[in-house]
Amino acid sequence: MIKADYLKPDGRRLTLYSSCEAIRVDGPIPSPGDAVHATPQLRWHPLRGEWVMYAAHRQGRPFLPPPGYNPLAPTTDPANPTELPPGAYDMAVFQNRFPSLSLDAPTPADVPGVPVKAGVGSCEVVVFTQDPGATLASLPAEQIRLLIDVWADRTSVLGADERIQYVLPFENRGVEVGVTLHHPHGQIYAYDHIPPVQERALVNMRRHLEATGRPWGQDFLAQERLAGLRLICERPHALSLVPPFARYTYETWVLPTRAVPFLSDLSGAERDDFAAVLHDALRRLDALFGVRMPYLMTVQQAPVDGHAYPEWPLRIELYPYLRAPGRMKYLAGTEQGAGEFANDALPEQKAAELREITLEQL
Amino acid sequence: MIKADYLKPDGRRLTLYSSCEAIRVDGPIPSPGDAVHATPQLRWHPLRGEWVMYAAHRQGRPFLPPPGYNPLAPTTDPANPTELPPGAYDMAVFQNRFPSLSLDAPTPADVPGVPVKAGVGSCEVVVFTQDPGATLASLPAEQIRLLIDVWADRTSVLGADERIQYVLPFENRGVEVGVTLHHPHGQIYAYDHIPPVQERALVNMRRHLEATGRPWGQDFLAQERLAGLRLICERPHALSLVPPFARYTYETWVLPTRAVPFLSDLSGAERDDFAAVLHDALRRLDALFGVRMPYLMTVQQAPVDGHAYPEWPLRIELYPYLRAPGRMKYLAGTEQGAGEFANDALPEQKAAELREITLEQL
Repeated sequence: MIKADYLKPDGRRLTLYSSCEAIRVDGPIPSPGDAVHATPQLRWHPLRGEWVMYAAHRQGRPFLPPPGYNPLAPTTDPANPTELPPGAYDMAVFQNRFPSLSLDAPTPADVPGVPVKAGVGSCEVVVFTQDPGATLASLPAEQIRLLIDVWADRTSVLGADERIQYVLPFENRGVEVGVTLHHPHGQIYAYDHIPPVQERALVNMRRHLEATGRPWGQDFLAQERLAGLRLICERPHALSLVPPFARYTYETWVLPTRAVPFLSDLSGAERDDFAAVLHDALRRLDALFGVRMPYLMTVQQAPVDGHAYPEWPLRIELYPYLRAPGRMKYLAGTEQGAGEFANDALPEQKAAELREITLEQL
Repeated sequence: MIKADYLKPDGRRLTLYSSCEAIRVDGPIPSPGDAVHATPQLRWHPLRGEWVMYAAHRQGRPFLPPPGYNPLAPTTDPANPTELPPGAYDMAVFQNRFPSLSLDAPTPADVPGVPVKAGVGSCEVVVFTQDPGATLASLPAEQIRLLIDVWADRTSVLGADERIQYVLPFENRGVEVGVTLHHPHGQIYAYDHIPPVQERALVNMRRHLEATGRPWGQDFLAQERLAGLRLICERPHALSLVPPFARYTYETWVLPTRAVPFLSDLSGAERDDFAAVLHDALRRLDALFGVRMPYLMTVQQAPVDGHAYPEWPLRIELYPYLRAPGRMKYLAGTEQGAGEFANDALPEQKAAELREITLEQL
């Protein structure tokens, strides 16, 4: 992996990545508009016990832009600059122009009735390819392999700021779930605290460690390989499965067979397998109903707050939103009002369906 | 409020309610099909620390039925029975034919790799009116007032079973969020445990009580009335507001001005005001953009596990899904992957917008 850092005219950072060939930029580094003064703030939800992010400057962000203008494609007309320059590179990461969190967030004025603080953190956009018509599943395997390196690099770069405690790379895919830009891309949120989902996972993993003397991730992998019931695809260094406690019908996890807390802990050969199994999982989800599966993908690594979390098993969690052809899963009363998911199908059955998709279908 | 209990041919319970006139049934009590053998199970998510409900028998449930057949309307053709009989009544509650939880759930077989138990609980459907074209907002005020009594009654009836620890009435409204039957209706889930959202609220309220000596709900009401910034509508015994820590752009809470844990704790006059403010809140949300606002509404009462929860403030939480005209809020990476909401606007601004909607617009 090769990378090069740039500064945009509006002050945001841009990093270009390449698998192997030298990076070349064939024009000025663009910004699609004036600098946005981001003033994100966090307020404390006293009953749910979580921060809520407020970013009033986001109201003006783009929504299904007119055909012909794609802010994530390389700039072709200097009069209509996009986020990226033309040139030779495979992937790009830049700071979101309308961030929910910012390392420069000003201290907000007091608000009567609620604890409020600056929305310190970072929001980055990851452009997966220069090809606006591709998807992660349709890209060559080497590009997924590069993405693993890019996520690992961003986690290290963002985590190096002592204010950052957690880094969450994700992809939200599908117009069904509000994706406003169709060019293949993901995002990375970096928080100045450990968010609630990860905080609870840590508490539960610690309990498992204290009760059994063994890391949860190691036990989970051993048990799933022994049961075999929910495995989808297995390679020497990585596997995919439907977890036995799946919340989404076709929920798919991708894990290295050696439980480690970070992508950066994986060797080159381990990253190769991890990328290949992720690629396989994405293609199975598209093949399942013969449509592009809308999904949320999150990369679940350990916190970067300076503590060691050897018990944390790195994994990618894929939440496919179709529960049957043409039938979306929506989060309704029990999911949002009680925090408890209703799933229409058993993980063992759905793992078998995904497993039985043949190579010709992929 | 008057009510009458019936048993459906397939064994499910049906209760009809009326505001004041006698209930009359003009035909046999129908079922739209054969008895469904529900086998819901719960599995424990070891990292999120929550139960996941599995109801494989739900795969066959109806989806946007063909025009002409409405399972929630009174039966007109005995050859095509619906869920309800023709007759004189204002509201109806029956057990869901495809429940995610059941008091008769059988003990499931062991599953290797995950704790599993019977999905004990209850799922009810609440039909708000015999009029298939109405909405809660369009119904007469007296019908909303009856709904408060019906929710209070169902909470008491379901809570009387010693296995039930929490009762959640809710309405999921809008085809945008997967509502499959357009006849105005809501649902009630009854759990055999305190769900995670309520469990966390209890922990946080207990902390507040220990730190201040005062119940959280009482402090919250006093503070919001003093600040005044986020109030929408106020009557002597109830008010609506955008909470200072709103997660949805136009999130609206409806609260009695006397903090009590249950709807059944409210006097007749208090219920009148509570119903009127709820009705007002629903009509404001529809008036806001001139379209039927898709939303989730949940009734947040205290647990019914036999303990007293004087610190729990009953409230209705309305989550409107439009954050601007034509722009839905979707739960993406940070909401689902980290448990932390991103909101594009400050509650004080959105409360002002809702407050400024004039009576003529309602």
